[in-house]
Amino acid sequence: MQQKIYLDNGSTSFPKAPGVGQAMCSYIENVGVNISRGGYESAYSAAQVVMETREMLCQLFQGPDAKNVIFTNNVTASLNVLLKGYLKAGDHVLTSSMEHNAVMRPLVQLQKQGVSFDRIPCDEQTGELRLDQLEGMIRPNTRAVVMTHASNVCGTLMPIQQVGEICQKHGLMFFVDAAQTAGVFPIHMKDMHIDALAFTGHKSLLGPQGIGGFVLTDALAQQVNPLLSGGTGSMSDSEEVPSFLPDRFEPGTMNLPGIFGLHASLSWLMQDGKMQEIHGHEMALCQTLLEGFHAIQGVRVVGTDDLAKRGPVVSIDCLDQDNGEIAFLLEEQFGVMTRCGLHCAPSAHKTLGTFPQGTIRFVPGHATTLQEVQEAVQGVRKLVEK
Amino acid sequence: MQQKIYLDNGSTSFPKAPGVGQAMCSYIENVGVNISRGGYESAYSAAQVVMETREMLCQLFQGPDAKNVIFTNNVTASLNVLLKGYLKAGDHVLTSSMEHNAVMRPLVQLQKQGVSFDRIPCDEQTGELRLDQLEGMIRPNTRAVVMTHASNVCGTLMPIQQVGEICQKHGLMFFVDAAQTAGVFPIHMKDMHIDALAFTGHKSLLGPQGIGGFVLTDALAQQVNPLLSGGTGSMSDSEEVPSFLPDRFEPGTMNLPGIFGLHASLSWLMQDGKMQEIHGHEMALCQTLLEGFHAIQGVRVVGTDDLAKRGPVVSIDCLDQDNGEIAFLLEEQFGVMTRCGLHCAPSAHKTLGTFPQGTIRFVPGHATTLQEVQEAVQGVRKLVEK
Repeated sequence: MQQKIYLDNGSTSFPKAPGVGQAMCSYIENVGVNISRGGYESAYSAAQVVMETREMLCQLFQGPDAKNVIFTNNVTASLNVLLKGYLKAGDHVLTSSMEHNAVMRPLVQLQKQGVSFDRIPCDEQTGELRLDQLEGMIRPNTRAVVMTHASNVCGTLMPIQQVGEICQKHGLMFFVDAAQTAGVFPIHMKDMHIDALAFTGHKSLLGPQGIGGFVLTDALAQQVNPLLSGGTGSMSDSEEVPSFLPDRFEPGTMNLPGIFGLHASLSWLMQDGKMQEIHGHEMALCQTLLEGFHAIQGVRVVGTDDLAKRGPVVSIDCLDQDNGEIAFLLEEQFGVMTRCGLHCAPSAHKTLGTFPQGTIRFVPGHATTLQEVQEAVQGVRKLVEK
Repeated sequence: MQQKIYLDNGSTSFPKAPGVGQAMCSYIENVGVNISRGGYESAYSAAQVVMETREMLCQLFQGPDAKNVIFTNNVTASLNVLLKGYLKAGDHVLTSSMEHNAVMRPLVQLQKQGVSFDRIPCDEQTGELRLDQLEGMIRPNTRAVVMTHASNVCGTLMPIQQVGEICQKHGLMFFVDAAQTAGVFPIHMKDMHIDALAFTGHKSLLGPQGIGGFVLTDALAQQVNPLLSGGTGSMSDSEEVPSFLPDRFEPGTMNLPGIFGLHASLSWLMQDGKMQEIHGHEMALCQTLLEGFHAIQGVRVVGTDDLAKRGPVVSIDCLDQDNGEIAFLLEEQFGVMTRCGLHCAPSAHKTLGTFPQGTIRFVPGHATTLQEVQEAVQGVRKLVEK
């Protein structure tokens, strides 16, 4: 059987951290019970794992407190809860022109309810935010800025620190979509003036699909109307949503196997030096991909070449050929698994001039080898230059 | 170590069906990839498992089509998506007085946005719906009835078939919360005139926490504004939510390990005669609990004694004692794991006259033995009559 080269870590990381699957299986087979739902002993050990997971995430993102870490099923749900719970008719919000539909589709829905938004333009080659335009776009009714930390199309990092400072200066809430960065890039909510950080467990956090969340400040929490409500195992005498965290945003039974899986991956990832090691490894592979693709005639590499300004998400546009056909042949002939198309980010592709044809996206992960990315480059060369 | 007797299956079932934990672990370790996200081969086998899971659920509930089966993270999310997506300011909705906060908290939130609701009264001893009052409560602006299939407090079944017929006659949408019944009671969406059925995977469907969903008709689907939106891997050139199912209601990365777990449990549960066998077993244990508790002085059993009108959820109120203390001692002295309190259902407890003291709830499961429920009854007797 042909060896597979998995370069779709931008969609979901694979392999996961050691022990993730076993932790989930062990929870199902040996623990099983819900937390905060029974007065029996094993419920407390599950509660302990959930609390430790919140603590690890709070530490990782330098959030306000473990109770401010809210679990959802994915980063999309997190962004919906934040945007739709916070923004009201008449409000204005700013975003970048490089966003995923996890931001854009909620904003377009909100637009129909009287919320307006504008896209801060980004560079058509590098995808970098035109930071100098931000302040001029703030209106009297602007209430927030929502922005991805790194593009899921071309890896370009947004200047989160600077945007956070501008938000603080103008009293705007700052929501960050860390789907592509949580787990490999340092994120410091307090220093970066981030009011809410949305993350997912199954990308660079190396946990299972089905668990994600957000971290938010206490001040913001009380201004966000819970999009979802239901039983919380707390204040059960009341039909009102509890005001305290995390219960305010966590109705219904939690994804406990998912949290056990994420607990295992975080325990592995947050060992001394591990994240830095993975980041260094992935960026070295990113450089190999960039240099390799730049050397191929007829291939346009989108995004910045400055490694300090990007993550390891590399996208190419095969100028005289069908990207879909090349991606198909790459897998068929060379076993290289990529993701081709618009990556649920039409706005980003329009910015980069790769709409509607899209790009072929290569994202190495912690277990990808140098040889694998070299083979991917060679595969593209053979297909494009033939 | 003391033997534990797990009687909190109303909160989550334990043990799960054979193979659930292994299926999740195997997905994480061997499959890993997302569906509809890459053009590579292993994505198709994950897609196959997801489709088969939809097909099994569609068959189980006699829904319109597999594509009408929508996955969410729990039944609470399902109910929020349905209620908040369908009801608008000025609308009126009917519910029963026996609902869980998964229905009541969203309704109370909607009330603040101009939706009104009324509770159809239920019997204060049996919890049975006063069906004869329903039609008189319908107003010109009534658009839907939302109701649990069985009380999570006392097990009483609602007359879903008759309510469905009334809804059809008056052109009302009918939403059913099947949290306590999916997997052990027959549910036939078409025959019962159910427009949307909300379910969870981790109770009687014997799957993992973190996966649930709803099934809805095509006609309803177009009238429900998606509460959550984002990337769907479809129509990626557009910032509008796709109109087709299941994509309209499934933004972001799916809980694939959860779906693999549910696939394993459904494959086990839907073997010939298995559900009937479990149902018969649980109802026999229910009868033992009811008879046992009725024979204890100072214990009030809430709910109906008619086994044809209830599920195996048994609640008692220890009249002259503190229920919380009895539940604590039951576990400490006899290892009996129950759930004590208001069960996230203050409305139901108010109906039954057990508010605010709540009840001690006993819910046997597929693996509970006759001896275990007998020991639970004996334990209560010793604690109450001492």
